[in-house]
Amino acid sequence: MSGAYVHGYHPRESKRLNDQAGTLVELLHSDTAYPAGSRVLEAGCGVGAQTVTLARNSPGANIVAVDISASSLEEASDRVRAAQLTNVEFRHADLFAPPFERESFDDIFVCFLLEHLSKPDEALAALKGLLEPGGTITVIEGDHGSTYFHPDSDAARDAINCQVELQRRSGGNAMIGRQVYPLLAAAGFQDIQVSPRTIYVDSSRSHLVDGFTRKTFTAMIEGVREEAINARIIDAERFDAGIRALHRTAEDDGVFCYTFFKGVGTKAR
Amino acid sequence: MSGAYVHGYHPRESKRLNDQAGTLVELLHSDTAYPAGSRVLEAGCGVGAQTVTLARNSPGANIVAVDISASSLEEASDRVRAAQLTNVEFRHADLFAPPFERESFDDIFVCFLLEHLSKPDEALAALKGLLEPGGTITVIEGDHGSTYFHPDSDAARDAINCQVELQRRSGGNAMIGRQVYPLLAAAGFQDIQVSPRTIYVDSSRSHLVDGFTRKTFTAMIEGVREEAINARIIDAERFDAGIRALHRTAEDDGVFCYTFFKGVGTKAR
Repeated sequence: MSGAYVHGYHPRESKRLNDQAGTLVELLHSDTAYPAGSRVLEAGCGVGAQTVTLARNSPGANIVAVDISASSLEEASDRVRAAQLTNVEFRHADLFAPPFERESFDDIFVCFLLEHLSKPDEALAALKGLLEPGGTITVIEGDHGSTYFHPDSDAARDAINCQVELQRRSGGNAMIGRQVYPLLAAAGFQDIQVSPRTIYVDSSRSHLVDGFTRKTFTAMIEGVREEAINARIIDAERFDAGIRALHRTAEDDGVFCYTFFKGVGTKAR
Repeated sequence: MSGAYVHGYHPRESKRLNDQAGTLVELLHSDTAYPAGSRVLEAGCGVGAQTVTLARNSPGANIVAVDISASSLEEASDRVRAAQLTNVEFRHADLFAPPFERESFDDIFVCFLLEHLSKPDEALAALKGLLEPGGTITVIEGDHGSTYFHPDSDAARDAINCQVELQRRSGGNAMIGRQVYPLLAAAGFQDIQVSPRTIYVDSSRSHLVDGFTRKTFTAMIEGVREEAINARIIDAERFDAGIRALHRTAEDDGVFCYTFFKGVGTKAR
């Protein structure tokens, strides 16, 4: 995801990028929209990658986006301003000591947050306290254990496991997607509905070959190369073989699959 | 799937069984229907598990169902007769030397067949010869490598790998689902569309906990116990631990995922 932008800025390229963004955004977010006047908390907004979609899909909702990182919040704020959205307020906050009254939100939205927490169960309990009775929580998480591809490759799986292992050592869980249902149930939410959202890529879906297999998933794994080698989780040769094998799945006869999980639960009235 | 039927035959139980059959059948087959008058070949019908659905969803089509096993054909024929379907003709045939004229079918349907063949590419080429130009082929295959669950368990994965390994030794491939697109492409089919069909099971979907996690997937793995132990792929203790871990995923906080792949391609005019 870093380095010179090799595709240039031709209008056709710009359209392609919109298409590709559209696909993942639609898969994960198209069924989330909050009524006008709703007070919505986005917990752990990071750099605002999801905040823009959230605010755009619920133009009448009042969104409060919080994160523990001040620099991420600044980036998120810039992103929302650039998108000319005015229904988001940013707050610097720790989810475990939130600066909000109990039951002060109608709905809560969480995307790619629980995977980074050592106590996702406690985070959900804290968030539940902020929710009005009858309010909903929406949770979206990926699951690296849902990754498989053709041609299959042990080296590619070893490279992916570097990311899983590094995230585990930081107290997170890169395979938390499959646990969205039990986590919401353990936190006492009701009427829980979880659905898998699978990105399936073959060469007939060229925008996903480039936009997901290469530039999202493989680039993310490539990003942990130095850290994984320095931590002696893998050696350079094996890691690089794994990355080559992931790129191999983006060729004409390759296939790549990854699944996100989206869950919605309700706080009892 | 064998042994005494513990649930009895209460009407409510019968409804549940219909619901559960409905779910998997709908996921895999609801979007396949052939026009009246079509000549449709079901290649490798086995005991007719899919034939009944195929014939019911395309009541005006003339289906020819073939298999290399005469005893399977007899069971399939009984099943179709019991369902009071009259649009299926059964033929005992080897797909690699089929007793049909070239280009004598409008459409071909293949479900859970390629996984058992050592040369799935040659089978698709042979089938293509039987298809009219402009005709379609539909292929449905599972993929054991798409299996993941919570709680995760190495023992469960070892038990599943017994089935994968035994199928490999018989010349098959239990992870062929992800290859449906490249196989159809290599056989020269056009306008190929492949979609993953994921069975996602958590305890809110109780019919699937019982009908899929326990009675379909885990029962299938349990079924290779003796063969796997005799072939020294695994020892009894480890296998049984794996089966217990699979049953564990059917408890209240468990989750189970499995993905089938369905592809449709067209023969060039």
